Amino acid sequence: MSQIDTAFGTAIARLWEDKKYNTLRDVLSTLQPPQVVAVLLLLPETALAPLFRLLPKELAAETFVEMESDQQEKLIRSFSDTELRSVLDELYVDDAVDLVEEMPANVVKRILAQADPELRRSINELLQYPEDSAGSIMTTEFVSLRPHMTAADALSSIRRTGMDKETVNTCYVMDDRRHLIGVVTLRQIVMAKEDDTMETLMDRNVISVTTLEDQETVAHMFALYDYFVIPVVDKENRLVGIVTVDDAIDVMEEETTEDVSKMAAMTPSDKPYLKTTILELFKSRIPWLLLLMLSSTFTGMIITHFEGVLAASIALTAAIPMLMGTGGNSGSQSSVTVIRSLSLEEVQFSDMFRIWWKEIRVAVLCGLTLAVAEFFKLLLFDRIAPLVAATICITLFATVCLAKFVGCTMPLLAKKLGFDPAVMASPFITTIVDAMSLLIFCGCAGMML
Amino acid sequence: MSQIDTAFGTAIARLWEDKKYNTLRDVLSTLQPPQVVAVLLLLPETALAPLFRLLPKELAAETFVEMESDQQEKLIRSFSDTELRSVLDELYVDDAVDLVEEMPANVVKRILAQADPELRRSINELLQYPEDSAGSIMTTEFVSLRPHMTAADALSSIRRTGMDKETVNTCYVMDDRRHLIGVVTLRQIVMAKEDDTMETLMDRNVISVTTLEDQETVAHMFALYDYFVIPVVDKENRLVGIVTVDDAIDVMEEETTEDVSKMAAMTPSDKPYLKTTILELFKSRIPWLLLLMLSSTFTGMIITHFEGVLAASIALTAAIPMLMGTGGNSGSQSSVTVIRSLSLEEVQFSDMFRIWWKEIRVAVLCGLTLAVAEFFKLLLFDRIAPLVAATICITLFATVCLAKFVGCTMPLLAKKLGFDPAVMASPFITTIVDAMSLLIFCGCAGMML
Repeated sequence: MSQIDTAFGTAIARLWEDKKYNTLRDVLSTLQPPQVVAVLLLLPETALAPLFRLLPKELAAETFVEMESDQQEKLIRSFSDTELRSVLDELYVDDAVDLVEEMPANVVKRILAQADPELRRSINELLQYPEDSAGSIMTTEFVSLRPHMTAADALSSIRRTGMDKETVNTCYVMDDRRHLIGVVTLRQIVMAKEDDTMETLMDRNVISVTTLEDQETVAHMFALYDYFVIPVVDKENRLVGIVTVDDAIDVMEEETTEDVSKMAAMTPSDKPYLKTTILELFKSRIPWLLLLMLSSTFTGMIITHFEGVLAASIALTAAIPMLMGTGGNSGSQSSVTVIRSLSLEEVQFSDMFRIWWKEIRVAVLCGLTLAVAEFFKLLLFDRIAPLVAATICITLFATVCLAKFVGCTMPLLAKKLGFDPAVMASPFITTIVDAMSLLIFCGCAGMML
Repeated sequence: MSQIDTAFGTAIARLWEDKKYNTLRDVLSTLQPPQVVAVLLLLPETALAPLFRLLPKELAAETFVEMESDQQEKLIRSFSDTELRSVLDELYVDDAVDLVEEMPANVVKRILAQADPELRRSINELLQYPEDSAGSIMTTEFVSLRPHMTAADALSSIRRTGMDKETVNTCYVMDDRRHLIGVVTLRQIVMAKEDDTMETLMDRNVISVTTLEDQETVAHMFALYDYFVIPVVDKENRLVGIVTVDDAIDVMEEETTEDVSKMAAMTPSDKPYLKTTILELFKSRIPWLLLLMLSSTFTGMIITHFEGVLAASIALTAAIPMLMGTGGNSGSQSSVTVIRSLSLEEVQFSDMFRIWWKEIRVAVLCGLTLAVAEFFKLLLFDRIAPLVAATICITLFATVCLAKFVGCTMPLLAKKLGFDPAVMASPFITTIVDAMSLLIFCGCAGMML
């Protein structure tokens, strides 16, 4: 699925070349913001600012929010102060904060100068929260109601103030000291009798998060509770903001990309791949490659040390890649399973013994199957001496068991020690398992041959 | 974050033992459905049905939806027909369909027998859609309005029918032949003047999906458009259902788990880890391990074939694990980057040349850095002959370049050929790169030594 199809893209480019600005305005006005972004990306860079000026005010602001930061920067630099102010006026606070976080210092200065005092204060407030906290992704534009209000009062309050709120579908009820005491939906208010009070309508068991809660936990709560909005409170349970599900989805995608990058031994980047420069890619990859390469020095040392043992048969040397490969694959199956279960919060450190017991039994089953299959392959296909084949297969069995044990343990340990378990995926597990399985191999071969 | 804390769990267990049923009812009634599920999981199995009967009707149904299928099955088996009917009455159609899909045949028969005729028809209709399609995850309970309705008409229609709809926050406008012609939010209706018609209020550029659209694409559209609901239409653009963002989040989590499992060479399972049996885990892992193990036969054959070349220096054999490890890691960095970009729809097959050009330059940078570092390590630390060290490092450079090339190409090819790119992650890339790098290594060694 692409946001706009090719024929449509060509038509727009043609209208731009032919300077059909009125037609362009009419066409663009029928689009959704991400589609407008896609159109702007198709046209030459010089078209960006003039086309943006053609958009109706609200669509312009929504389109602006959807843009990549380099496009936003170009636009802001081409804006007059008045234009900048009118875009800022239309932004929700959380989007304004995202913008300020991504722009270079001189642009930020201009943004803060043009923002109205209330917006400036809100931005500065939200910037205080630590990165990746609930506070940093929330918006302060929510509907708050009072317990004594009737449904009719609430509706008229929403009509009066709702225009500037990020959502009006879920409203929060606060007491005199701004403590969060209940949640009520627009649906309930609309369905209620005119004189039902919020106190009687609201659900008092409100699930909320504190400003310092990890954004990943917040995202996970949306998955768990099927909510569209979650309120954010300070330490005294005073309501300070809301997180909406669309922001939670962005967090989920971001965190998955991060996990997957770490699993493949890369430093995560929040830029889309095609926008990442060669140097950035290089920097995110080379430290891990170097580290893992140097740590495989141990396997080399083991081979050198057991030179005499390996000389007994070339079949032993020939089996090394198979042993290491199978060990690595077995280990990464277990580690990735545990990493994913940890991030879905299905397991925690205290489940260690249950996980061990499960993985050890699976390991024995897998190890036996592989060892038997490999034994017959070595005897019948490679025609290798039975004792050599036995050495290889005993090592294979031990390697699989060891790999699965290390694979499921490392992510749990990492989590317990406060590291990201995702780092404990294939590359690290493989490096550890490689050295251990070579030691077993050479040990077995030394004893048996 | 856990749904309920330990102290609370102990208190509930105590109340159950002491048979304080009235207190339990009062306490449970204040909880959110996922919290009730967590409480039920803490108590002995025999408590499940009696405690469930204590719940208020609506909370009971919502709790039922949140349960794992084995718990649901136990409950249904303990239900009288009347109890079953009253739970079914409270379910949304999409949840009822999920239930029917997970239960064994005899339970399904009972469910369909007790469902009212309209629900039964809807269930049967939704079951027709292919698995993983938009049709299979949608619900048919949406608010539909007509273009000539005024805001006042719309509000009273929502008040009349809204109780049974999955959401009333987003309403759809249909013409006489049920074609989807616009979308209007409850917020717009509430904010509008009483006699504004839907025709004037609605947004005519409705982003919709067809019933057969892949659920992953639908989930991705939620991320792109920041919507809470997306309408589903049939081939004639007639509105047949809606997908809500909470279902899209479940799809996202499911698909990520699937991708991650495939990346680690496992057949995905939709059960939580701790609920998966040993045999299921074994079955999901062993075919891949066997396949990959047998395919490393090639590397063994190469080593056997070049026995004479490798005999020149034990340092050559000792370098094999390092070469394979670094090749595997380099390749999986590229493949995982491309796989993730494909699933975020940031790149597509036609970007192949841009990706190649990017990856080749990164590969040359990484390969050079690694080769130089390893060269000095071999000379100064391992005190190996310069010519042997040069052979190893030239191979290292070539392996890194090759690995990154194979790594970025395979997922794109898989996508083009209609396979899941996630399968083309570390394990497969490693197996291919292992064999190729050994060939280069032995070739180089044969020529240079």
